[in-house]
Amino acid sequence: MPSNLSEERKISYLEDLKTLLRIPSVSTDPAFKADILRGAQEVSKQMLSAGLQNVEIFETAGHPIVYGDYLVDPSLHTVLVYGHYDVQPADPLELWHSPPFEPTIRDGMIFARGATDDKGQFLCHLKAVDGLLKDEGTLPVNLKIMIEGEEEVGSPNIAPFLAEHKERLKADVLVISDTAMYAPGHPSLIYGLRGLTYHQIDLQGADGDLHSGYFGGAVPNPADELSKILAQLRDSHGKVLIPGFYDEAEDMTVSERQAYASLDFKNETLAQAVGVNRLNPEDGYNGLESRTARPTVEVNGLLSGYTGKGAKTVLPAHAMAKVSCRLVPHQDPVKISQLLEAYIHELCPDSMKCQVTHIQANPPWITDPNHPTLEAAAQAVRNFYGKEPVRVREGGSIPIMDDFQRVLGLPGVLLGLGLSDENLHAPNEHFRVENFYKGIELIKELYRALAQATEL
Amino acid sequence: MPSNLSEERKISYLEDLKTLLRIPSVSTDPAFKADILRGAQEVSKQMLSAGLQNVEIFETAGHPIVYGDYLVDPSLHTVLVYGHYDVQPADPLELWHSPPFEPTIRDGMIFARGATDDKGQFLCHLKAVDGLLKDEGTLPVNLKIMIEGEEEVGSPNIAPFLAEHKERLKADVLVISDTAMYAPGHPSLIYGLRGLTYHQIDLQGADGDLHSGYFGGAVPNPADELSKILAQLRDSHGKVLIPGFYDEAEDMTVSERQAYASLDFKNETLAQAVGVNRLNPEDGYNGLESRTARPTVEVNGLLSGYTGKGAKTVLPAHAMAKVSCRLVPHQDPVKISQLLEAYIHELCPDSMKCQVTHIQANPPWITDPNHPTLEAAAQAVRNFYGKEPVRVREGGSIPIMDDFQRVLGLPGVLLGLGLSDENLHAPNEHFRVENFYKGIELIKELYRALAQATEL
Repeated sequence: MPSNLSEERKISYLEDLKTLLRIPSVSTDPAFKADILRGAQEVSKQMLSAGLQNVEIFETAGHPIVYGDYLVDPSLHTVLVYGHYDVQPADPLELWHSPPFEPTIRDGMIFARGATDDKGQFLCHLKAVDGLLKDEGTLPVNLKIMIEGEEEVGSPNIAPFLAEHKERLKADVLVISDTAMYAPGHPSLIYGLRGLTYHQIDLQGADGDLHSGYFGGAVPNPADELSKILAQLRDSHGKVLIPGFYDEAEDMTVSERQAYASLDFKNETLAQAVGVNRLNPEDGYNGLESRTARPTVEVNGLLSGYTGKGAKTVLPAHAMAKVSCRLVPHQDPVKISQLLEAYIHELCPDSMKCQVTHIQANPPWITDPNHPTLEAAAQAVRNFYGKEPVRVREGGSIPIMDDFQRVLGLPGVLLGLGLSDENLHAPNEHFRVENFYKGIELIKELYRALAQATEL
Repeated sequence: MPSNLSEERKISYLEDLKTLLRIPSVSTDPAFKADILRGAQEVSKQMLSAGLQNVEIFETAGHPIVYGDYLVDPSLHTVLVYGHYDVQPADPLELWHSPPFEPTIRDGMIFARGATDDKGQFLCHLKAVDGLLKDEGTLPVNLKIMIEGEEEVGSPNIAPFLAEHKERLKADVLVISDTAMYAPGHPSLIYGLRGLTYHQIDLQGADGDLHSGYFGGAVPNPADELSKILAQLRDSHGKVLIPGFYDEAEDMTVSERQAYASLDFKNETLAQAVGVNRLNPEDGYNGLESRTARPTVEVNGLLSGYTGKGAKTVLPAHAMAKVSCRLVPHQDPVKISQLLEAYIHELCPDSMKCQVTHIQANPPWITDPNHPTLEAAAQAVRNFYGKEPVRVREGGSIPIMDDFQRVLGLPGVLLGLGLSDENLHAPNEHFRVENFYKGIELIKELYRALAQATEL
């Protein structure tokens, strides 16, 4: 179904998206602090222009949270929308075909860091509000929207914010658009997300870098030792080797595996899409199950010694790895981090000083795939796309799903408007402009469907 | 024995060393091409000021070679001196306590990249010539000095240069000062050097970096796979696991091991000196044997994914390692490189594109520890230091020793003036100023002793 937005609105909405994308609101790096603040101000400005009320920028212990609402009638359902204006770092910069913070349209896609994760997606909600208020003068639900600035660093200040503003944020359902559709033109409803633990491992050998000729073979080499440790994190069957890792990990249910099996997923198609010869899923699971519903451990970064051109015969003093785990219900991220740290220390020879730094820890999240809120969202998809959405879990983490469930007791709907090939967290991130326009219309349908649901 | 250089000469010689050290003549990085040329010009200038004749800068296919000589009488022995004015890269820059190319004196040491490797050492020869010509009006031998600019990148143009200038370079013995003394005040004569092969390993997984949440557990991770490969290069007993690696490796002789055993070497002392809890020498060998007379493989560098502050949940597309082997007689570096490459490809799973780039390959070198040239050098050490030099092998590589032996048929003397704790190839490289002055006097003694040797 084509978007029925007017050309005038399309042009103006796309300009507003570009304005957001020009702000390098990288949350993990303190160098971008001022840009984060500019990001929050721009969100607040666009909330006001959409017609939201009570718009306010709330300071937190970290980056600010922007809030706005439109309260029609206490008898209507109340929907709380969550999004984030912060983005991942853009490096490696040299791999971008256009600068990450100069949004560029090519082949119907808008390229910029944050395009699909999550500026393009949360903006669909603001523009749905804008359209509904302009065309109908009101909304079918009471709407509360909060857009935060620390999603990419684990949302450390959301739980305190929810606790402090419990009354203000009171709602019947939480809606988030920060995931991907199952396939172009085929939305999915996500009923589970993996948790995350993220660590930095530092191995220190000698006091300083040494000449590898003079000392090699006698002095312990942290790059060698780190490799040996990392090699023992996961075996060739995709099984994580950290002792106790699977103890609390709940396997997929029989009905889930049947639902997954009914999808047209093929390992070969995903392998081809990302440019590898073959996937390496966990034994006994296909690629879709492995990447969404099975826990894993990954090396996210490596640095040691000489990495420039040519040769430098150095025996490095230091080696560093970034290592993360993706978790499934009911693995506890804090416990998994402790298991990982203990295992690393057990593997590390006593010739090395070894430090494991805990950077991030977020629990997994799961809900009933047949919850009434998901049924309402499915109705919205049927109304707009004329087809049944796919119900699957997703492999990424939205750290605050657990907070909303725990602190506010809210059921959640994850209705993604992006696609998984849009290079989120990678160079050349993009968002299909058509899906931006369609996303705005789909969100209007979602508000209507939630309004009509008897039970939420 | 204190140096008997006049204060005036000390000051002037040290200034000349500083001038050399201010030039960032890094040979491996094309960005320093102009500095390499400035380095060659400064060496040529200092040769002329020392009184050398026929001074000339010879172009090569790479960086130039500077030559000068002083030919007294055809009936005297002819000594060929070799050194290098190029240096290793200075990074990581942030670990230097003073800038690498602003020579700084602290605690009786001069700190700068190249201070001990090899600018401070070859300059002792130029200053010995300067002193002898000023004080005695002549030299006890015919002297030829060549200082090259590509030692740190494997001296690819020395063999052709030797072949082309065979007549000009004709000599009875080769002298090189580019190694370390055994201990402060206790020079060593090096009769063996390890060879070197240096490689870059590149593993490519997906076409681009991916979100580790969306794809982790299903898409092969090159940082994981690289770690698994590197972990299989050397076992926990210090044995290299590359098939065929030891086939041509000659073990130390019984008399060599006895000579090594008679030295006061202790693993604990070396461990303490470099700041590690313990060494990890090859099983059956102590640290001195392992670092000088046993072959090994080392990881010199690692790079993959995100290496900045905080967390970036990326599944890297690419992972890189620099890997080198140190070789002993009679391992063939080209063959060893081929064995390494074949082994890497064998270990690499078919989910990765794997490339092994050969960067450097130099043969090991060994000579008779009792050769007449070493006896003459020992006499010089006795004359100046009043003690017997230690005769050992060294673990580094001087790529051209094999070229001089093969092309010119020259026996070699390696009389080092540095110390192994002077951070060569590492941050805060330095050279003891006292050893610079003493080195100049010791070299004069060496020329005299070589002049008196009946057979060379």
